[in-house]
Amino acid sequence: MAMVTFSDITAAAKRLAPFITTTPLLESERLNERLGGRLLVKAESLQKTGSFKFRGATNRISQLSADEKTTGVLAWSSGNHAQGVALAAKLHDTPATIVMPADAPHVKINNTRSYGAKVVLYDRYTESREEIGTQIARETGAVVVPPFDDPHIIAGQGTVGLEIANQAKQKGITLDDVAICLSGGGLSAGSAIALKELSSSTRLWVAEPEGFDDAGRSLRAGEHVRNEPGGKSICDALLQPTPGELTLPILNDYGAGGVNTSDDQVLMAMKTAFEEFKLVLEPGGAMALACALSGQLELKGKTVCVVATGGNVDQNVFETALSC
Amino acid sequence: MAMVTFSDITAAAKRLAPFITTTPLLESERLNERLGGRLLVKAESLQKTGSFKFRGATNRISQLSADEKTTGVLAWSSGNHAQGVALAAKLHDTPATIVMPADAPHVKINNTRSYGAKVVLYDRYTESREEIGTQIARETGAVVVPPFDDPHIIAGQGTVGLEIANQAKQKGITLDDVAICLSGGGLSAGSAIALKELSSSTRLWVAEPEGFDDAGRSLRAGEHVRNEPGGKSICDALLQPTPGELTLPILNDYGAGGVNTSDDQVLMAMKTAFEEFKLVLEPGGAMALACALSGQLELKGKTVCVVATGGNVDQNVFETALSC
Repeated sequence: MAMVTFSDITAAAKRLAPFITTTPLLESERLNERLGGRLLVKAESLQKTGSFKFRGATNRISQLSADEKTTGVLAWSSGNHAQGVALAAKLHDTPATIVMPADAPHVKINNTRSYGAKVVLYDRYTESREEIGTQIARETGAVVVPPFDDPHIIAGQGTVGLEIANQAKQKGITLDDVAICLSGGGLSAGSAIALKELSSSTRLWVAEPEGFDDAGRSLRAGEHVRNEPGGKSICDALLQPTPGELTLPILNDYGAGGVNTSDDQVLMAMKTAFEEFKLVLEPGGAMALACALSGQLELKGKTVCVVATGGNVDQNVFETALSC
Repeated sequence: MAMVTFSDITAAAKRLAPFITTTPLLESERLNERLGGRLLVKAESLQKTGSFKFRGATNRISQLSADEKTTGVLAWSSGNHAQGVALAAKLHDTPATIVMPADAPHVKINNTRSYGAKVVLYDRYTESREEIGTQIARETGAVVVPPFDDPHIIAGQGTVGLEIANQAKQKGITLDDVAICLSGGGLSAGSAIALKELSSSTRLWVAEPEGFDDAGRSLRAGEHVRNEPGGKSICDALLQPTPGELTLPILNDYGAGGVNTSDDQVLMAMKTAFEEFKLVLEPGGAMALACALSGQLELKGKTVCVVATGGNVDQNVFETALSC
């Protein structure tokens, strides 16, 4: 737990400043009135590459040695970490190889390639991306940029929590709750470290798809619990079977809780994001919002911030959401 | 021209600070590479009520006397000014009546009503909204909040230009060009005043629909030129027949130029905004971006900021754009 400190996050924020977009906290008076509370959306879908993953990747890659930059980096990812690593690698002039599931959204695969990364596809149901990635790294000497279980990644993603706390303070707002979707837990763990320092009365919730609530159950059990295999969800970014080795203890230490909701609620949240916030969200990116709108997270009389983590959605899925 | 000064804009910015969202400047490395230039999008579609119009309305309504607040305000608008006035009135606890065309996008009419405003519909092709509005104001004593030809409105909208100049400076960017869509010219004229003070080497372009390029032609002629009647465009927010009496001289003084492009290019720009910036834009809100992407505005080797002014689009129009 002492592996990532608040000062790692402020150091990451300085490192990231020339590269990232400071994403806004959005609010809809009409929606607040309907909900009977105050809902703030941290629109991290507007981050470069369309998700927060660019932060962690930039924090890691900007600290590579000259030799490591020559050899390059390797990552495995369902898509958003892939794009984050690919762009960060491009901006730091180092080659990137990314292992991605063959059934990832086209937009994520195409975008990763568009940043000049080499993409290696695998079958999500029969192959292990960790094994494929580790094998390639062994052969090429590339530096692995893990999706979440890495102090640099956690510190980079934690700059989201840092921004939330600072932006809320600027607005004179005390946050009762912050909800963040979780796959491996890098974003929520990093944000927990920032919130603990700057807004320790804020409750933290990790938001997951129904049937993929490994983190919520792990937090209740106090140990790693895995999802049952074979489940399906439209939240392609949130299908990790269990939280990270580094991230779960940080979330546990904060006293984070778990919330989860259905694909239908996620689609409706995507539609609400379109109507009320003029945001394009992908299913996983709308998960925390869906938990707030569906009542899984209590809003009445409270001030709650949800993180909208990504916007990399195929057109047909977005149209399905609009048709809700 | 001396009617609105730079200090009016900084005063407006202070007045607006508790109410508005500071919208981000977004950028896509991939798109920049494709365009051979640097394109920044001022995402004002993320403003409360989904457009910049909330700024001018708040600047005017926040300065009403106590008596005026009791009587209320009146505005006419194709939709975005309507919503801006309606929410500003609600937040300042004053009743609002809005005259809107019966064929305005449903989302704009419904949203205006949702803020508690009374909506009076008229036929855009046979009736005059100014006459209807002036008549109601005479009967009720309501204060008219004009859509653009008013120093308070121009100063309020000018805070967009102020933010652009300050945000560019923070990023160490010198802007070669700024392009802003125009209907009556409040936003572009206010922004011109801000840019003249803070970034006077920046060229300013007003962006209009093909066939509605009254401002571009007026700027070339040095006097008010009107659009031919009977034209149609999907850019419902940009159909004003001629620039304002106050706004045209300000734009002329700055040396602004005009660009324009087709509905097809606008739909493609909406799709690009979805893909590259994860933004929901309405047709008029995508006009300046469309002029940049279609080559009407030269981008090669330049740094150009386009303002994405609004995101209040009906779902079917958005789906048409995605199908491009």
